[in-house]
Amino acid sequence: MGDFPAMVELNVGGVHYTTKHKTLLSEPNTLLHEMFTGKPNDIIKDAKGRYFIDRDGVLFRYILDYLRDSAISLPEGFREKERLKQEAEHFRLAGLVKTLNQLTENRPPGCITVGYRGSFQFGKDGLADVKFRKLSRLLICGRVALCREVFGDTLNESRDPDHGGPDRYTSRFFLKHTFIEQAFDDLQKSGFRLAGSCGSGTSGSSTDLKPGVDSEENRWNHYNEFVFIRD
Amino acid sequence: MGDFPAMVELNVGGVHYTTKHKTLLSEPNTLLHEMFTGKPNDIIKDAKGRYFIDRDGVLFRYILDYLRDSAISLPEGFREKERLKQEAEHFRLAGLVKTLNQLTENRPPGCITVGYRGSFQFGKDGLADVKFRKLSRLLICGRVALCREVFGDTLNESRDPDHGGPDRYTSRFFLKHTFIEQAFDDLQKSGFRLAGSCGSGTSGSSTDLKPGVDSEENRWNHYNEFVFIRD
Amino acid sequence: MGDFPAMVELNVGGVHYTTKHKTLLSEPNTLLHEMFTGKPNDIIKDAKGRYFIDRDGVLFRYILDYLRDSAISLPEGFREKERLKQEAEHFRLAGLVKTLNQLTENRPPGCITVGYRGSFQFGKDGLADVKFRKLSRLLICGRVALCREVFGDTLNESRDPDHGGPDRYTSRFFLKHTFIEQAFDDLQKSGFRLAGSCGSGTSGSSTDLKPGVDSEENRWNHYNEFVFIRD
Amino acid sequence: MGDFPAMVELNVGGVHYTTKHKTLLSEPNTLLHEMFTGKPNDIIKDAKGRYFIDRDGVLFRYILDYLRDSAISLPEGFREKERLKQEAEHFRLAGLVKTLNQLTENRPPGCITVGYRGSFQFGKDGLADVKFRKLSRLLICGRVALCREVFGDTLNESRDPDHGGPDRYTSRFFLKHTFIEQAFDDLQKSGFRLAGSCGSGTSGSSTDLKPGVDSEENRWNHYNEFVFIRD
Amino acid sequence: MGDFPAMVELNVGGVHYTTKHKTLLSEPNTLLHEMFTGKPNDIIKDAKGRYFIDRDGVLFRYILDYLRDSAISLPEGFREKERLKQEAEHFRLAGLVKTLNQLTENRPPGCITVGYRGSFQFGKDGLADVKFRKLSRLLICGRVALCREVFGDTLNESRDPDHGGPDRYTSRFFLKHTFIEQAFDDLQKSGFRLAGSCGSGTSGSSTDLKPGVDSEENRWNHYNEFVFIRD
Repeated sequence: MGDFPAMVELNVGGVHYTTKHKTLLSEPNTLLHEMFTGKPNDIIKDAKGRYFIDRDGVLFRYILDYLRDSAISLPEGFREKERLKQEAEHFRLAGLVKTLNQLTENRPPGCITVGYRGSFQFGKDGLADVKFRKLSRLLICGRVALCREVFGDTLNESRDPDHGGPDRYTSRFFLKHTFIEQAFDDLQKSGFRLAGSCGSGTSGSSTDLKPGVDSEENRWNHYNEFVFIRD
Repeated sequence: MGDFPAMVELNVGGVHYTTKHKTLLSEPNTLLHEMFTGKPNDIIKDAKGRYFIDRDGVLFRYILDYLRDSAISLPEGFREKERLKQEAEHFRLAGLVKTLNQLTENRPPGCITVGYRGSFQFGKDGLADVKFRKLSRLLICGRVALCREVFGDTLNESRDPDHGGPDRYTSRFFLKHTFIEQAFDDLQKSGFRLAGSCGSGTSGSSTDLKPGVDSEENRWNHYNEFVFIRD
Repeated sequence: MGDFPAMVELNVGGVHYTTKHKTLLSEPNTLLHEMFTGKPNDIIKDAKGRYFIDRDGVLFRYILDYLRDSAISLPEGFREKERLKQEAEHFRLAGLVKTLNQLTENRPPGCITVGYRGSFQFGKDGLADVKFRKLSRLLICGRVALCREVFGDTLNESRDPDHGGPDRYTSRFFLKHTFIEQAFDDLQKSGFRLAGSCGSGTSGSSTDLKPGVDSEENRWNHYNEFVFIRD
Repeated sequence: MGDFPAMVELNVGGVHYTTKHKTLLSEPNTLLHEMFTGKPNDIIKDAKGRYFIDRDGVLFRYILDYLRDSAISLPEGFREKERLKQEAEHFRLAGLVKTLNQLTENRPPGCITVGYRGSFQFGKDGLADVKFRKLSRLLICGRVALCREVFGDTLNESRDPDHGGPDRYTSRFFLKHTFIEQAFDDLQKSGFRLAGSCGSGTSGSSTDLKPGVDSEENRWNHYNEFVFIRD
Repeated sequence: MGDFPAMVELNVGGVHYTTKHKTLLSEPNTLLHEMFTGKPNDIIKDAKGRYFIDRDGVLFRYILDYLRDSAISLPEGFREKERLKQEAEHFRLAGLVKTLNQLTENRPPGCITVGYRGSFQFGKDGLADVKFRKLSRLLICGRVALCREVFGDTLNESRDPDHGGPDRYTSRFFLKHTFIEQAFDDLQKSGFRLAGSCGSGTSGSSTDLKPGVDSEENRWNHYNEFVFIRD
């Protein structure tokens, strides 16, 4: 251990890095710890005296970041997670492997649809000049585990007759609140994006009107459906 | 301070930069200021005599830009804001940390929907050959703080019975003007993008017609809803 | 074979790589195996003594990764697959060529639409306050081979009068289940993305009602169509 | 001027460039012209004798391109326009600054919506088996200056009662032709992209029919609205 | 010609490439052929003896690829086509210029819309439990030349009264088949992407029914319109 210089120059697959010797030792039981507490002469050196590591040179940037900070912050939209995990496994960085697994395991891909039957407030509020949105329920459909992950306590499962097992699909969930935007915010926080949306009106003239329903409210009935997807 | 050369060569985690010594001193109380007003021999040097810094080499490009111009202009769609903030914190660049925080804090992610009930001008204008868009209100729904940030003075909150606290969701806001495109421009300026849209017509024949409403205008009633999301 | 050093420095079109000699020999019958089991002096060297290879320097990163791990993990959204295949062919890496071919051949581009006629449960459930989605069939349209690849056992082909040859288009398939989200998840797993969606309601008043159909259910009838595309 | 070599090696913030001395002088009154017609010894050199410039090394690629060709061709979707402008200003490349300003000033961000009320040709053509699209007007809404920029001579402003000042919003413009696709092509040429679209049908049975309007044409009436946005 | 080494080291604007001398001569009448069949001493060399070329160093990667393989395979979504063409013109690589021109000239940007009036099969098939999509015509609108390029033999122009000149817009084309997905696949193969879609139902009760039309089929009539754009 004492035979390495304080600053170590590395040649990782042809890309050159410079770091402190103690950075390489920051995690015990790793391949780098093993290499750099052994004898310096056991590591091949390149023509410039840099210690040679036969792995991908580009991804080593994040390996080194992880060793410096004991944490990893990846670029937004980073496209080499799987590749980086392979490198982390090679170097036996258990913490980094775990973190990378969580990034993908905790966020399986999938689809959730949010739908609502809505209209506008014409009834008791009918004299006012602004008619606001009026909707009764936000319906949530999709795989049970995904829906639970996203909506947590705001999810009402009381009407699901199958007491949905986590891998089943259901179209019997709804939310305890009626704010579309809150549902969308929850989906966004969980990494879903809005992939498509459909709107449709209803048919039928006012001869269908049930007692107590304003005819204008009835005319403006519509069903809007939003498809959210997580990659 | 006098012992450093006017031009300093750096090895930042293996990436080489060259800059003026005075650039490194441009902000007081920073780690770089401390390092480069101390004794040159206290900084580790690499084999080529470059001063060694054990941090990410790629992001140091922006650290240096910030020191040169006392301002930061990031690439559009820059994906390493969080990572850069970590570097700025390490180097104790308070101004840069603050700027980066503002970029994310001032622009929290979220969703706003814009909806309108519209038709076309058939009434008094009925003899003209072009029927223009006619709409009464632009309805704004979402988290109160977000809506206020985007629409400012053009937002009418008078009909929100809860005098919405900033973290509540509301569907009782509307705009003081009726130009969809102005609302969309305001959303775009605030970093929102249109993520989905739904249209629906109405139902019911002209037997429902209330006095003074043209039957054609009634037939063309529709509700269009636009979902804007900020990442 | 014995005349090469354990660590080999390469100049691939001007980009420098360092790797173990045995990594270059990991696949028999390849151009690299041939070069690096021959006489060292038969390979041109650059001024620094690196072995010279007259090919694209950037893509060689993946060639080397493949040799190290006998497998390839490409960045998500990798945009140089065709270019990499050319390099793999040049180096006679049959396994890599095959893998890259599978990535594109097994996933031909194309389009599938999913449509459903739906409404809400008003009938026997009519007293409950929540009306859930109700739909009879998920219709699948597109090229037969694509539909089979995506939906496998969940595809019902019994009503396709042409017993569709794989290259024909059909609009006579439907699914054995009625969960939109499961269909979407299957499409996502097969690399399709939702590219567009259309919704429409129906027309006609309740005078059309057939026996046993609730008039509200009838009013809310709609057809939603989703277009999925694989690039 | 005579004291510089014909080929000049540069160290721009740590990135190395090589260019002809005369390339650096191709624009008079610039900082580079000033530097490289002065005394060579007035410019700091790095350890390898390269002339040192304390600016961003990556963006200098485009500075040099501009000097070589007296024109600039940026990558499609280039994300560092603002950053490059700062560099151009630093080097006093007035032509490049102007070009970069035009790229953003001439193309302010904003939104335009295109809408049309349409149906199909059932009337006199009613015996034919194909019913083509039939629409009367393409309505254009948005900020006046944007609409004028995109549609030019094809824009009909005759019905705008406010004789719209360029910064006002209007919903009273329409086009002189009725080809949706031509409008979309014009928007695309001006850098707009289709961000969302809404469709809706109409309501009301044929008892509303006005004289001379085919009842089928009436049934198929719809309003489609397309939102175009320029970033 | 004999005076150049077999392997040539290049300094292209500061980026270093290594290639075979004969690769540089692979195309006659080019600037590189001219340079590297002349006298070696006529080319400026850098301090390391590399032959110097005062052009963009990054794009030279593709110039060299083209010379090695006499063909060019660009990264998917390559964003520097225009910039590369300038380099190809500078080096007088007529074949590469032609290839790059074809990439853009053969694929002019533009817009095509596909629309269809559809319903479901209730009539003679009315007893079956699955109602499949039923549509009569796929309407194609857009610039004539674009429509012809995409749909070729499957395009029916017989109802276009203007016998559309290639630069005119038409809304009088339709397809000889009725598979939406085949039309979408053809558009995708020609480089178009689905940018937006609109759906709308119809109005009017069954009192409008013409003889021989099932009332349910009538109720489900809808018009879906899809906008495809090529960049």
